[in-house]
Order: sequence, then C-alpha cells, then structure tokens
Amino acid sequence: MAHRTHQLEVRTRGKGLYPFTRDVAAWVGAQGAATGLLTIFIQHTSASLVIQENADPDVCLDLADFFERIAPENDPRYRHTMEGSDDMPSHIRAGLTQTHLSIPIVGGRMALGTWQGIYVFEHRSAPQRRTLVLHLIG
Amino acid sequence: MAHRTHQLEVRTRGKGLYPFTRDVAAWVGAQGAATGLLTIFIQHTSASLVIQENADPDVCLDLADFFERIAPENDPRYRHTMEGSDDMPSHIRAGLTQTHLSIPIVGGRMALGTWQGIYVFEHRSAPQRRTLVLHLIG
Amino acid sequence: MAHRTHQLEVRTRGKGLYPFTRDVAAWVGAQGAATGLLTIFIQHTSASLVIQENADPDVCLDLADFFERIAPENDPRYRHTMEGSDDMPSHIRAGLTQTHLSIPIVGGRMALGTWQGIYVFEHRSAPQRRTLVLHLIG
Repeated sequence: MAHRTHQLEVRTRGKGLYPFTRDVAAWVGAQGAATGLLTIFIQHTSASLVIQENADPDVCLDLADFFERIAPENDPRYRHTMEGSDDMPSHIRAGLTQTHLSIPIVGGRMALGTWQGIYVFEHRSAPQRRTLVLHLIG
Repeated sequence: MAHRTHQLEVRTRGKGLYPFTRDVAAWVGAQGAATGLLTIFIQHTSASLVIQENADPDVCLDLADFFERIAPENDPRYRHTMEGSDDMPSHIRAGLTQTHLSIPIVGGRMALGTWQGIYVFEHRSAPQRRTLVLHLIG
Repeated sequence: MAHRTHQLEVRTRGKGLYPFTRDVAAWVGAQGAATGLLTIFIQHTSASLVIQENADPDVCLDLADFFERIAPENDPRYRHTMEGSDDMPSHIRAGLTQTHLSIPIVGGRMALGTWQGIYVFEHRSAPQRRTLVLHLIG
C-alpha cells in the first residue's frame, strides 16, 4: 500500500462547469492500484468541485444559473466588494459546493456511476488557472 | 492495513431522507478494523448523502421541504426538462448536498456523534434503487 | 503507514465562523507524516465545517449573513421548533455545508492553498463546545 500525490492544473474561461474526469482517470489508471481511495482537493475558495450528470450539458448550465440566482452579484448587503462584484458570490457558491471529493477505486478505476462526471465549478468571471491536488492511497 | 470495499443498495419510495446508518455500521463492524477511515459514495446525481439529526423525524421533513422551496420544480428557466419536472431540481439539490461522506473509525466503530444519522437523500418522485460504494481502510 | 486519530474541542460563542487551522496544523506537524490524508469530522448537526478565505474577515461575515437569509429563523413552515428558533435553521445550514473535510498531506503539511483557512461554522446562538475527530493516514 502506498500514497501517491499529483498536482493538476485546470484552466477556466469564466463562470461555469469544466469537466476533468478524463485527466483524473488517466492519472489514476497510471498508478496501477486495484483498490483504494482517491481524493481531489482544490486549492481555492472562489472555485469548487462538483460531481454532476455528464450526459445533457443543459444540466450544468441550469446548475450554474441556479447559483447565479441564489447568490447574486451586486447584493448591496455584501461587505467584501474590493475584489470585484463576482468575488463574494464566488465564496458563497464555493461554500455551498465542495472543496474536496473522495472516490473509491474498485477494479483499478474510480467507482463513478454511469452518468457521473467530475467538474471544476468556476465562480469568477475572468479566466483562471486552478490548482488541484490529487491523493491516492492504494 | 487493508482496503475493503462493499456495494450497498438502498431502495427509496419517492422524495425524502432514508436512514441507513445501521446497514453501514453492520458492515463496518464485520470488518474488524479498530482504527480507520470509512468512505460512502453514491453513484447518482439525482440522489445524495447527508448526515443529519436522528432524533426528531421532523428535522428530515423540514430539511426536505427547504430543498423543495429553494430549488422548486417547474421553474420556467430550467432548460433540462426532458427527464421530468423533478429531474433538474434533483441535480441542484444533489449539488447542494454530498456525493460522498468520510467518517473516521475509532474503537472499531464510526465516530458519529450521538445525534448523527446517515441518510440517502432521494430527490426523484418515483421509487429508485440507489447504489452506494463503501470503502474502508483500516 | 499508520492511522492516527485525535479529538479536538472548539469552543464557540454564538453564530459565526471560527478558524482552527493552526490547531489542526500543529497536530498534523507533530505526527511526522510526509505524505498522507487528513480527515476532519465534526460530531454535530447544528454546526459544520467550511474551508474559506482567511484574508479579509468580511468574507466570513458575508457568508454567515447569506446563510441567515437563505434559511431564516422563525419560518412558520418549520415543524421542528421545540429546541429553539435557531435549531432548524442550524440543521439546514449544516446540510448545505460540510460535516467532514479531507485534505491531502504533501511535504509534511496540509496542501491548503495560500488563502484557505479551516473553520467551524457555528449555527446556534448560545456558546457551544464542538467536538471534532481528526484522522490521519500517512
């Protein structure tokens, strides 16, 4: 049994969900662990992680719209405005979703359901480079 | 130290929270690990996992109602409607809760607080069979 | 490779976010594990865990305000009222945030981003002693 870690960069181009299941699957496959536990950790508080349906892209658009409505920009009650109108909503949306995901490894692969994809949920308007840390014990 | 995995099916009968703490505790107990980490992963994006109060059943009813209000059915802004009016709200509610839970094992048992129960949160209206993957390292 | 567990108490003084990154970092550092996985688990359903920005304290205030608005006290639709007007909102807010966090250990330290802090999110109005279980495999 061994620990393996890896750093992954995901480039985003504004708000929305960015799939990166393939990048993770490729790294996991290369480690050759039959059974184990994978953890994905995002080193940011204005972007987050979600597992969502990978079939109809409208699901991701509707999901992003929901978060836009529930934690809107320019709410006059926000104190934290100095980093732009999209920053405080970003922190709220990150707080409502995930900073980390853990997925069991079974038979050498992530035990995802058929329709599950892994996404970076970018909450800022400008393009960003998001750093993820992968950890596998197996 | 060893990895153990197990597949668990939880049958649901429409929207709501379904406790399954006992099923998990039974499997964990049978593994005989004194110390470790348990991870529960649900292979769906229209049902999710939550840890909630196990004492007053009204808590689960109020929690379900809250999610019904915050991400209602039949919002005319949803694009993804082809799988039924309860499907897009399901994805949102799953996005707001958990796809996985990790719980330390201490003294051979899950280190849950006295009032904590583990639930499948079903978001679809029709009965479903939900598949969970358990992973224990210990 | 070994499992280590530790119990940590965080005292809160009413609603809000309480940083405890240092306490966790001190315990992790003392374990001497170069690589591993840390899991933090809170044994309560009316307080929760979040990773948020550690720079501008207004972020935590705005975040707490958001949860106050989205799941307000005294909603006449709540059934569960016998433990006080702040109890049911607490369960909802805990359901929307985290009961556990897992963070990879790289180079002997938690792989947190520069601006990430770890917080107990207290949802009750009265002071509480919150029990956290830390688990490290490394």
